[in-house]
This record gives sequence, structure tokens and C-alpha cells, in this order.
Amino acid sequence: MDSAPRTLHWQGDVDGHLVLLDQTRLPGAVVEIQCHTVEDVWQAIKRLAVRGAPAIGCAAAYGVCLSLRDLESHRGLRGSPAGETVLEACDYLATSRPTAVNLFWALERMRKTAKRAVASSPAELAERLLKEAQAIHAEDRDMCAAIGRHGADLLAELPEGSNLLTHCNAGALATGGDGTALSVIFELARRGRRPHVWVDETRPLLQGARLTAWELQQRGVDCTLICDSMAAQVMREGRVQAVVTGADRIAANGDSANKIGTYGVALLARAHEIPFYIAAPTSTIDMSLDSGDKIPIEERPEQEITHGFQIATAPAGVSAYNPAFDVTPASLIEAIITERGTISPVNHDSMAVLMEDSLNDQLSSKQ
Amino acid sequence: MDSAPRTLHWQGDVDGHLVLLDQTRLPGAVVEIQCHTVEDVWQAIKRLAVRGAPAIGCAAAYGVCLSLRDLESHRGLRGSPAGETVLEACDYLATSRPTAVNLFWALERMRKTAKRAVASSPAELAERLLKEAQAIHAEDRDMCAAIGRHGADLLAELPEGSNLLTHCNAGALATGGDGTALSVIFELARRGRRPHVWVDETRPLLQGARLTAWELQQRGVDCTLICDSMAAQVMREGRVQAVVTGADRIAANGDSANKIGTYGVALLARAHEIPFYIAAPTSTIDMSLDSGDKIPIEERPEQEITHGFQIATAPAGVSAYNPAFDVTPASLIEAIITERGTISPVNHDSMAVLMEDSLNDQLSSKQ
Repeated sequence: MDSAPRTLHWQGDVDGHLVLLDQTRLPGAVVEIQCHTVEDVWQAIKRLAVRGAPAIGCAAAYGVCLSLRDLESHRGLRGSPAGETVLEACDYLATSRPTAVNLFWALERMRKTAKRAVASSPAELAERLLKEAQAIHAEDRDMCAAIGRHGADLLAELPEGSNLLTHCNAGALATGGDGTALSVIFELARRGRRPHVWVDETRPLLQGARLTAWELQQRGVDCTLICDSMAAQVMREGRVQAVVTGADRIAANGDSANKIGTYGVALLARAHEIPFYIAAPTSTIDMSLDSGDKIPIEERPEQEITHGFQIATAPAGVSAYNPAFDVTPASLIEAIITERGTISPVNHDSMAVLMEDSLNDQLSSKQ
Repeated sequence: MDSAPRTLHWQGDVDGHLVLLDQTRLPGAVVEIQCHTVEDVWQAIKRLAVRGAPAIGCAAAYGVCLSLRDLESHRGLRGSPAGETVLEACDYLATSRPTAVNLFWALERMRKTAKRAVASSPAELAERLLKEAQAIHAEDRDMCAAIGRHGADLLAELPEGSNLLTHCNAGALATGGDGTALSVIFELARRGRRPHVWVDETRPLLQGARLTAWELQQRGVDCTLICDSMAAQVMREGRVQAVVTGADRIAANGDSANKIGTYGVALLARAHEIPFYIAAPTSTIDMSLDSGDKIPIEERPEQEITHGFQIATAPAGVSAYNPAFDVTPASLIEAIITERGTISPVNHDSMAVLMEDSLNDQLSSKQ
């Protein structure tokens, strides 16, 4: 998608700002948002102008860089020494959305950077923060590419022209790179495997219809849009060979939170003996939570269901329930595809091994 | 719903016409359509202004009565003797939608009525046809009430305040009476059982959000709207004690076609050990088909998915797949609730017994 608009990028040098593609306007309009303040970024995350766990992490990291802009006149944060302002910005950005753990992971990296630079001048602190945010962004691109390779290796035995099904959007729009689940599909296409993708439209906000179908179309990957309620039917027709989705937070035992509807798709896949895969970076794994029961699930406004597209589609006064995520138990997940390799079977031990290797590699690379 | 607008009714005497509530406009606007020709009725069925298997049957029966109106000037049908005109109208109305068998069942009754009146004057034929259509409509009302009673008996052991989940609309708007699945729920409410209903919004045309939520709200039955993709989550939360839906055609072995998404809900219910019930009149049962594989499934326009909310929600040029129904295998159905009693377990033998008893009763009542 070289010619396509970028999901997010930093414009200019240390005095620059964050530019986000407004995903709420896609595919009808390609509109960029210029974020000059921490508040701008918080709002953009909150209202899903930028979404997808890795992309939220990148956006929040850049958001922290904006906290030092115009330190005196900044109205969103108390006047305070530079380091403290940065930490406050981290705390504030962490309140934008509760489920995706990459947000907290990226903010933690920014916090550590600020703390390491405690003796620096504000100017030097600003440089270090931007460098760290850019590192998070660059690592995200590499991570996407690595997930694509590992996933395509895993799916190498599928016949050419196989049908994959995905839910929500785990593509370039959800990351700083090529995506997670869609990176696997793009890599399969790159290898000449001619995948066909069933795209769940993904109510209530239609990230599948609006974003995933758009990305696949732009890359020339064959796809067919369906309503979420049709996934069982296409599975029954024998027209799905594998399901791949992203994740917003993965617990230590492999239970995976992802966009609402993913758990249902995983159950349907199991009923039809179709393998169900999660593709996500290790930054999505939260080893501090034993199991998926502990993952906080964001509830979003009822209006997203009752007034989905600028019109009322339900009678006034009707209640709605709108959990934004659900948790797919590890037992339904054939493998988790990360940038460091594939976890299968998915359980506490296999997760721990991958994360420990990952930690050791990180430590040794810093020595 | 005594004060509510009627789903369909015949206005006037033998020279009258059919009035339909335009369900495509609900809940935003309550608009009636005046059908004066066979073509008007065909169009109304085709574009789902009237929908729901039993209601389609009633509307088509009344539609046949309009075929004799203005016999000379009627442009939709060849000038032909009265009886032949009626049969042509039956053939034509049968092409409006392929899946719901009640349409063919009602038209078959109208055909037989016409054939029995072969020696009658056009005026007498018209009277007999209207009488038959009114009988079909009246029987539908009784059928709904009986289904409600049998269903409420079956669910009598659920604790008070139990949660039921339904998909699509099988209420007063889908029938000539109080509904099928919703009749069961209304009867539970009438018996003071205070049910709470999870309403699947039912993409693409949102019959759940627009019609079922509206009906439940009008009758004061507690309900909560969810996206179809959320059913698995509410089941997992332990907040569904039973699922009840209608059906559009039931094969001789109990396999049941209903609105797309029903099969998925049935699989999810099974995974959570929640009983799944079908409520439908015996006129929905098609003993000529061995199994659900033989039920023709209507495919509807892609635009219903890509332009569902009066705006484009998917990029231009993306393909969509839009089967209007799916088939739930008998093995997933705990019971089929009919006006003649409950079928459980659901299989070829139990279906045959009920249908044979039904036939014998019909024969003996005519002797």
C-alpha cells in the first residue's frame, strides 16, 4: 500500500506533530487529522479515529511527545517540570481505552525513557522521547513483516486459492506496518498463493466492511464481504479453510481478547473443524493476567448499535448492550502467530517459553 | 398490540383491497400500503414490505383475490377466463420469494378453491376466494395463539425473569396474529413470568432492531438489543436460558430454514448447553423435502450489505455474499413448537407422527 495514505506518521522534527488517518471516515473519505496536543491524540484514540492495538500503541507514544510542546501554555496538564508533564501525559493517554494492552506497553516504554532522561534538559528529553516513539513505530513495522512471514509459513500447506475468514481489521490500518492477521494474508498473496478472504463486516462499527475490505481491495487481494451472521453459513458450505484474526490483549494462558464477535467465530470454526489463528505481536501479550477472565472489557455507547450510521435503526428508548471485545479461550486457538514465532499448542507453558526467550533475547541484545 | 397498526388486513368487502403495514419503514415511520393489484402485492412481498413466512402466506392469499379486480383492464395478466386468471395470479405470486413455504401452501389453498368453483360466476368465485383468504388469515391468528400456549407450557420450568434470545422477527409483524417465537414470549409475559429478551439486530435488514425490539417495547416486554456478533458473549456470560426463533421452511426431518444467522446462533447455543427452539405453524413444514439440503435459499442483492444504512458502508466495487436464510439441522433443535403441539426430539419419525395426526384431524373435521 505504498501509494495509500499512511495510518499514522510524525510530521517534521522534534517540533513536529502527529498525523492520523481518520478511520471513522473510511472508506467514503480519506481525511487526515493533525494532532498538536496530547488531548487531540486522546480524543482520536477514544473515538476510534485511530484503532487497532498496535496502532494505538504507536499513536500514544507519539502523543507523549506532544506533551512538551508549548509547556507553559498547555491547558490540558498542570504546569509542572518537563519530566512530570510527560508522566502525566502517559497517565492521561492510558485512560483513553481499557482493553488493548499495547497502549499501556508503549506508554510504559515512554515513561522509562522519561525517567532515564531525568537529568536532561527539556529539549534533550523531547529528542529522546521522539526517538523512542519512532523506535516503537519502526519496530511495529518489522513486527508486522515478521508476523506475516511466520503466518505464511504456518499456512504454507493450505492449497492455492484457499479461503480465509477474518473478523474486524487487523491490517495496515491497525498497526504501524502491514498489519497482523492481514500481514499473513498479504504475505500469502506475495508468495503467489492467491488467497480469497471472507470479510466479516464487524458490527457495530463495520471495521471489516469499511477498513479490511478497503485494504484488501487496494492490495488486489480477492475478498467477499459478509455480515457477521453469515460466517457459519460459509463455513458450512465448506468455503473456509482457516480463520485468522488479530488480538487486543492476550493473557498468560493464551486466552485472547479481540473485537466483539471473535469468540463466536472461534466457536463456529471449531464446530466446522476449521483452524482458528490469532496473529499479534508479543506486545499484545499481558503475562500479568493469568487468564482472559481478568481482561477488562470496554463497554461502548448504546448509540453505536441503535444509531449506527447517522440514522436510527431501532425504536427510541430501546436498551442495547455494547461490549467492544470478547475473549476467545486458548482451547479454541490453534496457534498464536507472533513476530518471534508461532505458539502452538496455546497454553500457559508455551506462552511462558516464548515470552522468556523473547525477554532473554532483548536482554542479550542490550548487553 | 390492540392499538398498534395491523400487519395486514382486507379493507372493505369483495370489492375491497389489501392494506399492508410497510415494514421497511419501521420503526421510523408507520406507513400503510394500499394494494389494489396482484402486482402491488408481488412487489410488497419482494421488497419485504411484508415479510415473515405466515404473513407472506396471508398477503399472497389476499393478493389472489385482487386478480379478478378489473378483469378486462388488468395489464399484469393475459385476458383470460376468471378461473385461469386466478391460477395465473397464483403462479405469479409464487415467484415473489423462494424460501418460505407458507407462500406456496397458501397459494395452493387458493388454487384449490378456484378449481372447486370452476362452474361459478366470476362474482361467486371472487366471494369464495375472499372467504378462503380470510379463513387462512383467521387460522393464522388461532395458530399463533396455540403456538404461544404450547411454547409457554414447554418453557414453564424456566425461572421467573429468565432470559430468552431471539433472531430476526417472528412476531405479530411476521404473521396474521401474535407471532410464532414472539407469541411464546408474549404468552410467558401474560402468565407473569417476566421474560427478558436479547434481540439480535439481524443484519443485513435489521428486522430484530427495527421490528422485534419495536414489538416487545410496545407490549412492555423487557428487552435488550445486541449485534448478532454479541450473542456468543451474552451466552458465555450465562445470561441466556433459551433461544427461540421462527422458521421459513422445515423439511421432513426437522431441518429448519430461517433468517441467515439462525444456524450460527443454534451452534452457539449448543456450545453453551442452551436449548434452541423453533416456533412455527405446521404450514411451514414441507414434508416433500427429505432434508434441509433441498430447501432453496434465496440470495438477495449485495447492496443490502454494502449500502445497508442509506450510505455506502463498504468501498465501491467490493463483492458481497448475501444468502437470506440458512438451515439449522434438526440435531441442534431441542423442540419444534407448532400449533398442534411440540415435536421433541426432532427427527423424521416425530415429524411424520405430528403431520399425520394433523392430516387425520383435518380429514375428520371435514367429514
